[in-house]
Parts: sequence; C-alpha cells; structure tokens
Amino acid sequence: MPETAPETVPDAALQPSQSRTRRVMDHVTQLIARRELEAGEKLPSIRRCAAALSVSPSTVVEAYDRLVAQGVIYARRGAGFFVSDTAALRPRSLPQIDTARARDIDPLWVSRQSLDADVAAHKPGCGWLPADWMPTEAMRRALRGLARADDPLLAYYGSAKGEVALRNLLSRRFATQGLAAEPAQILLTASGSQAIDLICRLLLSQGDTVLVDDPCYFNFQALLRAHRIKLVSVPYTPEGPDIAAFEAALKTHRPRLYITNSALHNPTGATMSAQVAHRVLSLASAHDLTVIEDDIFAEFEPDLSPRLAALDGLQRVIRIGSFSKTLSASARCGFIAAHPDWIEALVDLQVATNFGGPSPLVVALIDSVLSDGSYHKHMEALRLRLAKRRREVARKLSGRGIVPWVQPRGGFYLWCELPDGVDAAEVARHALARDLVLAPGNVFSAAQNKAGFMRFNVSQMGTPEGFARLGEALQAARP
Amino acid sequence: MPETAPETVPDAALQPSQSRTRRVMDHVTQLIARRELEAGEKLPSIRRCAAALSVSPSTVVEAYDRLVAQGVIYARRGAGFFVSDTAALRPRSLPQIDTARARDIDPLWVSRQSLDADVAAHKPGCGWLPADWMPTEAMRRALRGLARADDPLLAYYGSAKGEVALRNLLSRRFATQGLAAEPAQILLTASGSQAIDLICRLLLSQGDTVLVDDPCYFNFQALLRAHRIKLVSVPYTPEGPDIAAFEAALKTHRPRLYITNSALHNPTGATMSAQVAHRVLSLASAHDLTVIEDDIFAEFEPDLSPRLAALDGLQRVIRIGSFSKTLSASARCGFIAAHPDWIEALVDLQVATNFGGPSPLVVALIDSVLSDGSYHKHMEALRLRLAKRRREVARKLSGRGIVPWVQPRGGFYLWCELPDGVDAAEVARHALARDLVLAPGNVFSAAQNKAGFMRFNVSQMGTPEGFARLGEALQAARP
Repeated sequence: MPETAPETVPDAALQPSQSRTRRVMDHVTQLIARRELEAGEKLPSIRRCAAALSVSPSTVVEAYDRLVAQGVIYARRGAGFFVSDTAALRPRSLPQIDTARARDIDPLWVSRQSLDADVAAHKPGCGWLPADWMPTEAMRRALRGLARADDPLLAYYGSAKGEVALRNLLSRRFATQGLAAEPAQILLTASGSQAIDLICRLLLSQGDTVLVDDPCYFNFQALLRAHRIKLVSVPYTPEGPDIAAFEAALKTHRPRLYITNSALHNPTGATMSAQVAHRVLSLASAHDLTVIEDDIFAEFEPDLSPRLAALDGLQRVIRIGSFSKTLSASARCGFIAAHPDWIEALVDLQVATNFGGPSPLVVALIDSVLSDGSYHKHMEALRLRLAKRRREVARKLSGRGIVPWVQPRGGFYLWCELPDGVDAAEVARHALARDLVLAPGNVFSAAQNKAGFMRFNVSQMGTPEGFARLGEALQAARP
Repeated sequence: MPETAPETVPDAALQPSQSRTRRVMDHVTQLIARRELEAGEKLPSIRRCAAALSVSPSTVVEAYDRLVAQGVIYARRGAGFFVSDTAALRPRSLPQIDTARARDIDPLWVSRQSLDADVAAHKPGCGWLPADWMPTEAMRRALRGLARADDPLLAYYGSAKGEVALRNLLSRRFATQGLAAEPAQILLTASGSQAIDLICRLLLSQGDTVLVDDPCYFNFQALLRAHRIKLVSVPYTPEGPDIAAFEAALKTHRPRLYITNSALHNPTGATMSAQVAHRVLSLASAHDLTVIEDDIFAEFEPDLSPRLAALDGLQRVIRIGSFSKTLSASARCGFIAAHPDWIEALVDLQVATNFGGPSPLVVALIDSVLSDGSYHKHMEALRLRLAKRRREVARKLSGRGIVPWVQPRGGFYLWCELPDGVDAAEVARHALARDLVLAPGNVFSAAQNKAGFMRFNVSQMGTPEGFARLGEALQAARP
C-alpha cells in the first residue's frame, strides 16, 4: 500500500450503523482539517451534533469515542470533548526520498518493489498469486469460526512450539510424503524466512560459509548477508545443483549449510532428480554438511518428486516451509521439521528473539482452512489453472524472443533467457517507470552471471496490458 | 497447551452440519485406530457410509474430503477412498523428556513454563492478563469484520513497513504523548521482542556491550545472550537506574545500547522520575549511547509519566512496544518508532529475515479494535480493576511476610521481597510441583543478586487456591 493511501477501516466491514458513525467522524475531522476547529477548542455537544447531522445521539457518542481512541479529540469529565493538540507536535514533512526506487538492484530490490508497489502496478516479478486465485472463501469461513472461538485463543500467547493441532496436521501430511516427523519435532515459526533465520542463528558462527544455488531465491542471499556469512554458490542444472561443482565447493569451502528448494526450485522451476538428490546427501554426509530444504512450493507439484528430507529421515536435512503461496501470505506462519536435538534449542531461540512464533489466531485460521474439505479441491483446480497459464505465457514470451530455460512441472515461475545482449536490470528499470515490477536475473545470482535472465510469475500475467508494458521496457533496453 | 491435547477445531466454531461431518470423521478414524481398516484398505462407499450413520451422502463427501486433506485417507479416481499408509511411517515415540521441567532456572525458564503450562496451572509468574480481562468482545466484532474484508487483505503479504492505517493511528497516539513521529518513522514488527531483536541486529557488532537494569525483564537477557553480546547491568532504584552506577558503567564499559522500560518498569513496577530521565539522556548524549525504550506497559499508567523518547525527540532514543498486554497476545504485532535514518535499514533487515513484519490480517484486527469506541472505556475499567487488585494482593502477600518493594502506579506486577533467608528459585521449584508457575527474582537479575525477590502478576491471583499453593511452596522452601 503506498504511504499516501487514505486511512480507513475496510469498508466491507461496515454495517449501516457503522457508516453513520463514520459520517460523524469524517464531519469532525473535516472541521479540524479546514481549521474551523483548532487545537483546544470544544466540539459541538452530542445533542447539537446529532441534530445537525440527523443521526441519533448514540451514534455521535460512538463517533466521539472512536475519535478519542484515535487521539484526534479528548474528553474532559463534565466539560465535553476538545480537539487534541497534535498538529503542532507533528514535525514538518520529512524529505520525500523515494528510497524504494532510488535503491540499487540488489537481492532486496524485488521484495521491496513488490511489497510496496502501487495497487495499479503489474507485478510479474512478485512471488505470489493474485488474491482471487487464493482460497479466500475458506478463509472467510474460518474467520467467522474464529469470531466464535474461546477467549484464551483470542487472548493468549499460545504454546512455545505453536499450537499442536497444526503440528499434528503437518506431521500427518509429511507422513504421506514419506517423511516421518513427530509433532514434537515440528516448530511453528513467524514465517518461512524466519524459519531459515532461526536455523542460521543456531548453527552458524561468524566466519562460516553457506552454499546456495546459482540462481537461488534472492532472499536467501539477503538473509545470509544479514548474518554476515560467507556465501558460495554452485551452478543449478535442470536436475539440481551441478554435482561436480557441488563436490568441489564442499572440498574447497567446507560450508556448514546448504540451502535449496529441491522441488520447483525458485527461480528456475526445475526439480531435483532422484540421482542428484542421492548424490547431494552422500556428499553432505561425507563433508558433515547440514541441508535446509525449503519446501514452500510442495503443493504445486502434480505428483511427489524426491525430497531430501524424506530420503535422509531428518538426520542432516531440515525441512522448512510456509503457507504463503497456497493459502495466504497475510496469514504469516512458517514451520521447521528437524531432528529433535535441534528443536528445543530453536524453541528457546524463538522465545528469546520473538517471544514465540506465529499468532495463535493465525495458526487456528490456517488449521481451519487446511482441514476444510474445500482446500484440496481448490489446490487441484489451482494446479490445472497454473499448468494452462504456464503454457500460454511461455508461448507468448517465446514469441517475443524470451525463452523458458526449462518447462517446470508445477508452480507459477518461468525462468527465461532474454534476447541476445539485453540486460535484465535495464529492462526492470524501464519497466518500473511503467509501473511494471520485474525480477531481473542477477538478483537471484550470487555469482552475478544471470544478467540475461528474468523470472516471470505467470499468474500475474493475465492481461495484454502487462505484456504491452513488458514489450516497451524490452524495446527501451535494447542495446 | 500440553503436547497431548486432543486435536480439534475449536468446538465453538461448529455448526450443526459441521458436527455431523465431525461424527463421520470420528467414525472413520476409530475404524482405523481399532485396525478394522488398515493401510491400503478401501473405505465404505459414500452411500453405504451415509446409510450406516444416518447422515446425508453430502455429509460423508465432506467428511471424506477433510480426511483426505488431513492425509488420513486418499482418493483414487473412480475407485473410491483408501486408508493412507502413514502409521507405518511414524517413528516409535520419542523419549518423553520433560525438557521444560528439567531445565535450569535461567532467563528463559519463566517464559517456557508460562507458555507451556497446563491449563489447570496457576500462573502468578506469567506476564499477561487472564483472557476474560481482555477486550475479546471487540476482537470478535473485528474478526467478523475481517470475514467481510477485501480479498487482497486476506491474501497478500502487505507493505514492507506494515499497513499504514495502524502506523497513522500510532503516530497520532504518540503525538498526544508529546512524541512527534511521522507514520513513515514507524515500522510494524512481528512482535515487541522482534522489534528489539531487529534493532540489536542493526546496531550491534560482536564484542559490543549492552546495558540493562538490575532487575530487568528476563527476556532482554535471553535475547542479548542469543546475540552473544556482553551484558552489563546497573541497579534499578524506585526512580529509575542508579545514576552514579549508570555513569560509571558508561565510562567503564562504553556500552552501545541501553534497554529499559521507563514507565511501569518490568519487573519492579517503578517509574523513572523526570530528573533521572533527564540525567540518563544527558549521559547518553555525552557517551554516544543509544537507548531502546520498551513502552509496552504505557497504557496501564493512570497519567503520563516522563518518557525518554518524548524528551529526546527520537534522536538517540528508539521507542518500541506492542499490543500484547492490553489488546491480545494472540495478535502478534510490535512496532518501532525511530529516527528516519534507521527505519529504512530496519525495513530491509525485517524483509531479509522475516519477509516483512506482522500478519496484515492481525494488523487490521488491531487497528479495528483500537479504533473501536469501546477500547478506551475497556482500558479505563481495566486500570481501576488493576488498582483494586494490586491493593488486595499486596495486603495478602504482606500478611505472609512477602513485602512489595514499591507500590506501582499502574500495571499488574508486584516486585516483592520474600521472608528472610527464603530462596525464590527454591520456592519456584516447589511451586511448579504444585502446578503453580512463579517468577523467581534471579531470572530478572544479570548480577544474580535477587535471590530473595519474586515478581507477582496480581491479575493471576484472584482465587484462594493460588495463595494456598504459594503458602505451601513457601513453607517447603524455608531453610
């Protein structure tokens, strides 16, 4: 949401009586804005205001109470309501540096652009589905259910590992994927990124090296930089990391951790083959390497591909994930499944740094949606919809000389090579000027050798307008 | 919630049709539990199951779908439903070490005990109000409103700094407290602890020293230990930190940060005087010290006491806080108000480590409750209720030789000295055996010289049963 968005309670939430209250509130704030009422001045009495606006006195009472809650006015017992002296306290406007646009195209660039883009922007660079592709009806049902939940769920911090119902559900889901993990081995976290962050805090010390794929999810790089950790990357092939380079990196750099997506790898959409998965684990074992498998795209696969965590039995692989891609990114919650020895230490760390994990309310919401019979039908339909969209977008992009590196078996990303000599960062800059947020290749590349690539989110490319702007940006960037 | 709690969707959320669905689900899981249906076996057809349980076929469809969602059964197109092979995958039960009880009484002890205590436990050691003292009715209204919100709020990550409506509200609230902070200077975080954690990550380097009060909130210590930071403490007096000791610590240890609660200090309930606040800021300026003012108990004050952030104008003081104490601890959200120079870097850091801050759904919920006219009336009533309870509990404790160190002007803590020679940790161990969670003095003390003190949460001491158990534990611990 842009900084200048008008501040409102969502209108969808308004009852008729609430919209009358809103009208009275707007009336008062306008009087103040027009300086017809200044700081310290008394507001019209309840009765007078009610008569003037043809509403009931109780509506005015409600409106004045809300304005008190907002600090716009204050009450003096027996004397009435007065305008707060807040305007005087406000500093003059800060210089409006458009920090998001001014910044270099670094691994945080796409995140900041996508998160804060104008609602009108097209975002083929972002990492999420359009809202109307998400199971929002099931969420609405779950929210109505939560409104009837017991007081403790609404009020308390929740248990240190996260509510057991969702951990039970995850344990059962993992079992169907061949991964044995007791609920006690599962920790709910504030987000998928937070899950990786906690593991890094537990396992890494200054001077340690971490291995990532090239290309890899840009936020792995941003996160590891925040840890001031040495980062080494190995080339990613359509079957997983290049095994010769992987082995050489283990020998040369002795990394403590390897972070990857084994299925529907971000950004390429490729999936690790069984043979590569086995080789990765053998090498990890020989070189005492711990692996974080970020399985955030798991549910987008048409059928289950080999998983490092399942092959390894959670000995040296740690599974992490979240619900942001398939259920809701607004319901922040991630998880860690790991060897029991690590879990207790991770719980302590999360209590120390966040006093627990996700909101228990959000956990109950997620549990409720996942247990809703409609959810797996929604996912089935979504997989089909995405398969169709991937084909369409791949065809349209190819027609513009933008060629997919692999045809992914699921998910919403296409990792594409741009026409010869076109620099993706240059395209992204021209696109941003046209309110089109793109994800240029080098934000994914620790080695900075993906200048000719771009990641496209096919779900965000449903209209000709986006393609038109892309075409213009591409034209503007041609050497 | 204990690990063994049965897994259920909150029953309050059930409609009649849902409880029929639940009955079918229970029937199937019982068949599996009794081994009348084993892995790979086919379930009764929809029609047969419906007839057997006298429910409609659509109820059975719904129940089977949910069991598929839970991984208990799976569907084969055209062939029916089958029992999943998950039991075989489950490892044998892990050894049930009661890690929480076995651990040493360290700064994480109270958190872990309180968060994971049995529902039947009494918790005068915990840091929150009973659920029925919280504004849960306003939360229910807000949740019903959210169920009608637009899709984007339900689906998307939200803006990098956190939704602007709540930042506007905080900005206005700060203004009424004499603190000028533009919404752009405010960052919403996943929690109050996360707020401090982010600041520590931004400002501290290995080898740095941080100053805290003795006693101080135990989680400040846990958090700083997670940062592997040197911790120095200064004695806290009823007017704030001992200024001579504070100055000496600045000269000797050159700390980078000082973390404190200036009003309703945790655990003592004391409030910094204007004179001490001024001296602290002068010394901070002379020694280039940054101050984190954790203002989480702000709303419990009967009237506003001096605040470091307001006196300093957010130059070297950073204000943090959350809504956990007065609105809901289940709605995880904190905030940082700081000099604009720091905010952009903090936003980047939060994106890198958590891909943003709190759940936008939760932010909308908080905004909605705070803007609800009932909220400030709730707080007024709560302050009166707490004042009465503080007096009652102080009287009862004094009668047992447990004497408050100060009589706080607000909040729910009483920091008390135990009878001569009684060790608080010993009392806490005996209490835990009686399902009574206490907060012994040394968990708050970096210097470990508060063995004779205990923090009591008066809101959790409403029944004679708690006092009886406390009396027993005290008796058992007498030397």
